[in-house]
Amino acid sequence: MTTRMIDIPEAARLLLAHDNILILTHKGPDGDTLGSGFALWAALSAAGKQARVCRSNNVHQRYSFLTKVYDDAVSGLPEMTPDYVVSVDTATPSLFPESCSPYGEKVDLSIDHHRTNSGYAADTLLDVEPASCAEIVYRVLLAMHSTIDTYIASAIYTGVSTDTGCYLYQNTTAACHLVTAELIGCGIDLGFLNRTLFETKTRAQLILERFAIDGMEFYYHNRVAILSITNDMMKLAGAEDGDMTPIVPLPRKVEGVEIGITLREKENGNIKGSVRTSGRADASKICERLGGGGHFGASGFECSGELAAIRALILRFAIEEMKAVESREGKTV
Amino acid sequence: MTTRMIDIPEAARLLLAHDNILILTHKGPDGDTLGSGFALWAALSAAGKQARVCRSNNVHQRYSFLTKVYDDAVSGLPEMTPDYVVSVDTATPSLFPESCSPYGEKVDLSIDHHRTNSGYAADTLLDVEPASCAEIVYRVLLAMHSTIDTYIASAIYTGVSTDTGCYLYQNTTAACHLVTAELIGCGIDLGFLNRTLFETKTRAQLILERFAIDGMEFYYHNRVAILSITNDMMKLAGAEDGDMTPIVPLPRKVEGVEIGITLREKENGNIKGSVRTSGRADASKICERLGGGGHFGASGFECSGELAAIRALILRFAIEEMKAVESREGKTV
Repeated sequence: MTTRMIDIPEAARLLLAHDNILILTHKGPDGDTLGSGFALWAALSAAGKQARVCRSNNVHQRYSFLTKVYDDAVSGLPEMTPDYVVSVDTATPSLFPESCSPYGEKVDLSIDHHRTNSGYAADTLLDVEPASCAEIVYRVLLAMHSTIDTYIASAIYTGVSTDTGCYLYQNTTAACHLVTAELIGCGIDLGFLNRTLFETKTRAQLILERFAIDGMEFYYHNRVAILSITNDMMKLAGAEDGDMTPIVPLPRKVEGVEIGITLREKENGNIKGSVRTSGRADASKICERLGGGGHFGASGFECSGELAAIRALILRFAIEEMKAVESREGKTV
Repeated sequence: MTTRMIDIPEAARLLLAHDNILILTHKGPDGDTLGSGFALWAALSAAGKQARVCRSNNVHQRYSFLTKVYDDAVSGLPEMTPDYVVSVDTATPSLFPESCSPYGEKVDLSIDHHRTNSGYAADTLLDVEPASCAEIVYRVLLAMHSTIDTYIASAIYTGVSTDTGCYLYQNTTAACHLVTAELIGCGIDLGFLNRTLFETKTRAQLILERFAIDGMEFYYHNRVAILSITNDMMKLAGAEDGDMTPIVPLPRKVEGVEIGITLREKENGNIKGSVRTSGRADASKICERLGGGGHFGASGFECSGELAAIRALILRFAIEEMKAVESREGKTV
């Protein structure tokens, strides 16, 4: 299967040439896939088209300012038979949630920023430079001559800001800041958005954070840090999936840590792993060894198995990556 | 005492008209006063002038990328007798550290963004719109036709990013993002700066965070949250002053909290208080009642007394402010 690589004007032309557009988002829905999806939906609707967003069931409550407007707008509308299927921020069909998977092999256009995009769509608009897919969607909307209203601007802001950890991660570019300045000019409620997306910790998150700090362990001269969150901890904290978001970057943040690993026991028994690196170590290389992937500085995987066994495995892979980095750079510890 | 309010071109002209310039920064040195001070120093030095930065003894190690370059550059230089004294980011002379206080009443130019600036300098360049003083200094440097090298750009970035909590706080404007895009264009090492300024938690900070979460209490329908850090906790954690930075915003971040208060027992027996509010409540009004002040969303105070007594007092003032807000808005709980 080969895909055709297209540019922004062509993507805009194709979107405007169709009337019933289904937008697919990825599972484990984050701010970027949701922001990209709902921005695109709002712009297509404003252009007089039928559009729907297909999303996972477990969208965190913090994104309700996006989902509520959408749900209200489409409630009562007749079912739509799509004549064009677009995916946003999704590197491979395996990343679609169950609700989207019937369309997984029938994607007409994939808009994405992941180096690992498998080329599963008929057409692909891929740019690996932007920190977020939402930045690409924003440029597509400008090419469509869409009016960037406050809803659309808020959705794009959600993608740009969350995928950069609020302009903190290494993927942040001058373009991220320029786009954000434009979005602020569109009248978004920055105070509300930042409180909602970043500043608000639920009580459950606070308790989870205590478990995380208490259980964090350090290896390989304190350059590798790891923590595990079990189902029991989740229950004790009264936490849900989305409460993990602020936990995942924690281990990497500790002074001297170059590889931070968070493991999470899932309800289905699988183990979900997230690896964050700073500087030299390649997170995607570590995760690929467990069937996952992602970016250089931030990657993930999901697999079945015992937490303790997977913990031992990922620690070994992380330490091997640290050693590989050091031998490349001619340094040893 | 009256001050003359001047604009950016006039400030640039005055700075360029003098040859031996002393720059004063405030005590409890933060990224904004340090970034503003060292950016100004570097630009004046590049313009062939003698300049010195007067700073507090307890600058946190995270700012050493700014101080080291300065210390190396001025070490071995003869003492300088200033013919012009400039303060940055300092609202009143009482905020100078001991090292600067001999000059406290002889300030020729105050460059500041605090609404509470007392007009203590002969000339004042005050703009309360920018989130940081560093943004004003940046515009002064542009008016001086300074070359914004990576050191200067890093110093300005330090001020802009730390005073907005990395673009998170309500004071963040489109201008903050535009200036940042320009600074990134000057070749700053964004990965290094963000890791240093925001991402790196010392082990001491981790332990302090546990104490903070463990001791956090909620009042007035969970709209007011407070935590106290005692000298004993600081010792147990092996923490120093600067390790408090990530603790201060914590209570306000909890879901539903509108006023977050952090109290800190200081070694000299004083109590230092920080109040952060979201949305409706005025932090400066609360702190003024204890002899402090600051911004609407972020203020502080320092006073002598027993921790428990001051805790009771500030809680009362915070609850009174919540009630005042609610009665203004016609809502009661």
